[in-house]
Amino acid sequence: MPARKRPTPPPPSGSTSDAPRAPTLSWANGTVRLIDQTRLPVTCKVVTIRTVKEMWDAIRRLVVRGAPAIGCAAAYGVVLGVQQTRAKTPAAFRKQVEKAAAYLATSRPTAVNLFWALDRMKAVAEADASGDVACMKERLLQEAHAILEEDTAMCHAIGRHGLSVLPEIEGRPLGILTHCNAGGLATSAYGTALAVMYAAAEAGRSLDVYADETRPLLQGARLTTWELMRAGIPVTLICDNMACQVMKEGRIDVVVVGADRIAANGDAANKIGTCGVAVLARHFGIPFYIAAPMSTIDFAIPDGSGIPIEERDGDEIRHGFGTWTAPRSVPTYNPAFDVTPASLLSGIITDRGVVEKPTKRKLQALLTTG
Amino acid sequence: MPARKRPTPPPPSGSTSDAPRAPTLSWANGTVRLIDQTRLPVTCKVVTIRTVKEMWDAIRRLVVRGAPAIGCAAAYGVVLGVQQTRAKTPAAFRKQVEKAAAYLATSRPTAVNLFWALDRMKAVAEADASGDVACMKERLLQEAHAILEEDTAMCHAIGRHGLSVLPEIEGRPLGILTHCNAGGLATSAYGTALAVMYAAAEAGRSLDVYADETRPLLQGARLTTWELMRAGIPVTLICDNMACQVMKEGRIDVVVVGADRIAANGDAANKIGTCGVAVLARHFGIPFYIAAPMSTIDFAIPDGSGIPIEERDGDEIRHGFGTWTAPRSVPTYNPAFDVTPASLLSGIITDRGVVEKPTKRKLQALLTTG
Repeated sequence: MPARKRPTPPPPSGSTSDAPRAPTLSWANGTVRLIDQTRLPVTCKVVTIRTVKEMWDAIRRLVVRGAPAIGCAAAYGVVLGVQQTRAKTPAAFRKQVEKAAAYLATSRPTAVNLFWALDRMKAVAEADASGDVACMKERLLQEAHAILEEDTAMCHAIGRHGLSVLPEIEGRPLGILTHCNAGGLATSAYGTALAVMYAAAEAGRSLDVYADETRPLLQGARLTTWELMRAGIPVTLICDNMACQVMKEGRIDVVVVGADRIAANGDAANKIGTCGVAVLARHFGIPFYIAAPMSTIDFAIPDGSGIPIEERDGDEIRHGFGTWTAPRSVPTYNPAFDVTPASLLSGIITDRGVVEKPTKRKLQALLTTG
Repeated sequence: MPARKRPTPPPPSGSTSDAPRAPTLSWANGTVRLIDQTRLPVTCKVVTIRTVKEMWDAIRRLVVRGAPAIGCAAAYGVVLGVQQTRAKTPAAFRKQVEKAAAYLATSRPTAVNLFWALDRMKAVAEADASGDVACMKERLLQEAHAILEEDTAMCHAIGRHGLSVLPEIEGRPLGILTHCNAGGLATSAYGTALAVMYAAAEAGRSLDVYADETRPLLQGARLTTWELMRAGIPVTLICDNMACQVMKEGRIDVVVVGADRIAANGDAANKIGTCGVAVLARHFGIPFYIAAPMSTIDFAIPDGSGIPIEERDGDEIRHGFGTWTAPRSVPTYNPAFDVTPASLLSGIITDRGVVEKPTKRKLQALLTTG
């Protein structure tokens, strides 16, 4: 970690507060404010992150989560890592940028946006020709702001494009199932999968959203329901194992979920359970869409078998709610993600348009789209 | 409720105790002892049930659960309901039997064994020719004992027959996935789906059992793991939404689950989530078996659409672990069971043999099997 001249300043007033309308993350006076997503929905607290170590920890502990939000958080994490640097030369400064980025890269393995954002920050430091450390610091901060702003614009674009895939239903609200949280809490704002729902609601469509609770960490129960209720969109919470039943009963017209990393061929890693939902959707003939920004597509990985899948601690299953729900010594298997093969996707909704029945060629064509 | 002469007697010593080897339910001195399954796996307490009201409540609250165990419990519940009767004539006594049975029938709607056991008890009262109330009481108790003993024999028969469907695997343990708890805790002893695993272990086969935790009430996490660990059978706990992943990774060779009611055509109601597992198993080409006694087959119901599905309180989802895991006011949908169509079953393992690819004709043929 970069050495610091002074001890951590005392928390600014209001650094931890109830803030039901707070953004997922924001920059304020040399700190990053994050909604502490581990405490939702019981309380909406905003925490203040002052150091790269605190940001690493926030990403690791899922205080901030969701692939695009992790990207934004990591970019600001690099800024935090160098803002009190004593480096005098651009070369020394670049080393500290590299160090902060390398450290943040170890926080979580699956979401590609993390590495994409860190690469952008490193590239800014590399490309700088000013020869001035203060100037380089400012440019890094501007780059983090740009990543955040682009993320918001990207979410709105996904919402717009996603409207086109929603089936027209007569006489009742459109039934949409989603898994985990790919909403405004997973991005700077608005979300990816939920962006489609926000855009639909804004376009005057009436919706019935079903949210899988998403064990073990219950992002659907805790975050998606909270977020949709805050936005006034009707949502019904179900357990993960009820998705089959709501599909069978004809309540679901389309499934829209997010992604943490998409391989070049369209295989998509997302929260554990996503692939199972895709298999069910195929069985019942229900369209299944991934909504994700271009930055989630990792063209360096040919197919899903190359996406590293994080395995998390078994106590998330055995002791996930402050109480032992299983024998303490029972072995567990706790993969945090799974990979849905492209063959099970109806399409991928990106910020550059919808790719129906994705293939490597179709996805690459997006790179040259405006 | 039948009037009682005396107040409830004080609890016999040891009525509530740690009893890791206790049977699921047993008769003792005019009371029924039940392992309180709502407290597993944290503590194994045995509770003493003295009245039909207490039994109704125990079934309702899932202190005792699992279709065959509910049948046994209900039979003893009728005995409790009339044991302190003041009825002097067989006709008055029969009325009280009817009343106790009708009351117990309202405890839970889905498991057919409940109604089957109550019908047997009523038939004993009807058929009695002794004209003596004391004698009728004794016959009812003997009938409840018979139901319990037949249940144990039935479980062992299911285990024996189930051995024949287990694939032969070279070089590694056999991977079996199960959902909910269809074990010794769901029956008098030994279980239905788990009977197959106990029989396999006794036959010297080495197993790797995967247990879905089974939200919302976590019977897999709390009961199946506890029971298999107690029996020394290797078990790995997963969240419901991880079943797809363990199948995709090739860890599962066969799925075996229980059932709460099977329609005449083989459509099978079981714990919510079962149908989803069956769809996944079909997708991955993995055999999927239901294990259930003949008493679970309801020949009066032509197909699964006629099986009533219990919907339970939404707080089981929102507040299932002593903490709010979702906004308190979020709407929920909480069906306790689903129906797996016969077309998704590889077969049904009964106490009278295995019915591969079940049809109405094949199931009816079992009725005439020895």
